[in-house]
Amino acid sequence: MGKPTNIKLTLQYDGTGFYGYELQPGRRTVRGEIEKALFKLYKKKFKLVSASRTDSKVHALCQTVNFKAPGNIPASNLPRAINTKLPDDIRVIGAWVVGAKFNARFDSKSKTYEYSVYNEEFMPPLIRNFAWNIRLKLDIARMKRAARHLIGKHDFTSFCAVGGDDKDFVRKIMKIEIARGGKSNLVSIKVTGDGFLYKMVRIIVGTLVEVGMGKRKPETMKAVLEGKDRKLAGRTAPPQGLCLTKIIY
Amino acid sequence: MGKPTNIKLTLQYDGTGFYGYELQPGRRTVRGEIEKALFKLYKKKFKLVSASRTDSKVHALCQTVNFKAPGNIPASNLPRAINTKLPDDIRVIGAWVVGAKFNARFDSKSKTYEYSVYNEEFMPPLIRNFAWNIRLKLDIARMKRAARHLIGKHDFTSFCAVGGDDKDFVRKIMKIEIARGGKSNLVSIKVTGDGFLYKMVRIIVGTLVEVGMGKRKPETMKAVLEGKDRKLAGRTAPPQGLCLTKIIY
Repeated sequence: MGKPTNIKLTLQYDGTGFYGYELQPGRRTVRGEIEKALFKLYKKKFKLVSASRTDSKVHALCQTVNFKAPGNIPASNLPRAINTKLPDDIRVIGAWVVGAKFNARFDSKSKTYEYSVYNEEFMPPLIRNFAWNIRLKLDIARMKRAARHLIGKHDFTSFCAVGGDDKDFVRKIMKIEIARGGKSNLVSIKVTGDGFLYKMVRIIVGTLVEVGMGKRKPETMKAVLEGKDRKLAGRTAPPQGLCLTKIIY
Repeated sequence: MGKPTNIKLTLQYDGTGFYGYELQPGRRTVRGEIEKALFKLYKKKFKLVSASRTDSKVHALCQTVNFKAPGNIPASNLPRAINTKLPDDIRVIGAWVVGAKFNARFDSKSKTYEYSVYNEEFMPPLIRNFAWNIRLKLDIARMKRAARHLIGKHDFTSFCAVGGDDKDFVRKIMKIEIARGGKSNLVSIKVTGDGFLYKMVRIIVGTLVEVGMGKRKPETMKAVLEGKDRKLAGRTAPPQGLCLTKIIY
């Protein structure tokens, strides 16, 4: 079988057909499908460790997981070997042997999520599973002014949904980039941080969108943070606009 | 009710969830869903005339249909009114009053279809319903040389699938544009013609891809056309890569 090795995998998935990444009894999940595929390949059960536990309908271009694999399949052959056992809404795009101590969850230095808003009257059917439709024209400059208040290390209690298992609510946001794509009417909101609380990115996006619609002043973000109360922030943006796009280790 | 008027609608749809445009008993079709929506809106049955009868899983950014509507809803209000009755994989993006004789099927001067090939090892899950995955790197210059033979007025019997209702096999192709998108690994094949036979665009694409893979010489296209035999052309490219992108009247 060869020596067991710690393997890191990079995954892409279309979240539309999943009840999120994390295992849930009786439901189709990303982790469940990958563990099933690994079982078919190795005839052995594995427990995956992942960088992020994305919610139902949230997508990923670079989810990262690791597991201790028997050494009988070279890492370079793993993507193709695992993909033949996976449904086509998940793909392994890279595999590497990493140090025995590497942990996909705890070793990440930063993660970036991109949220897409389609800012027009009608939602094009071809992107309906990948964006949030906001009809009223968003004021991007206002949204940028609001976002600035969130940069840095803060207690993000106001941006954390009930139901998570977070105990420490301090996180650091390194960057928020907001841009309108030329003619496409797509507004992209990219948030980079050292980690995120439960639904934190979607609550940030929901709040910034309210600022962009003129329902909220950019300066109020400071009071929202300081109030440490979920009710002070805006609505949770729907999941399908969110995509995990980058993880740095 | 107002005077009955001939209404032209422009539609977008994600073909993934449909057995094509045309009505089929007991199956979910684009036309079926729109006629149902119009029935809900007007409490009256309509028969739609369409520019194209796209196959199962084929997409459209600008399908055009017309129907004789009661005049009680102004055309400018129709997109929103119909969309509230439609599932989210179809959207009406425009509505106009047209002359009584306008016929969406017979009056079109040209139609353009775009076919997307993802030319890389792994098919990204997010575009799996919108492209055909070809692993071997395609030689675009070869494909362009082959495509040139198809330009003009020809008998396209060799590029027509069994099962259509075509009687005259002469069509005119005005333009075939083939391009590789910068870093994206997407190869786009745009075909513009005055009309297309059953599965004609997909057979053209399948044949051009065989040329691009080196399985066929560009010069053989001439003999394929002249042979007037479906067996001489290449395989039919799968439907999900195809999208109706433009119709000129």
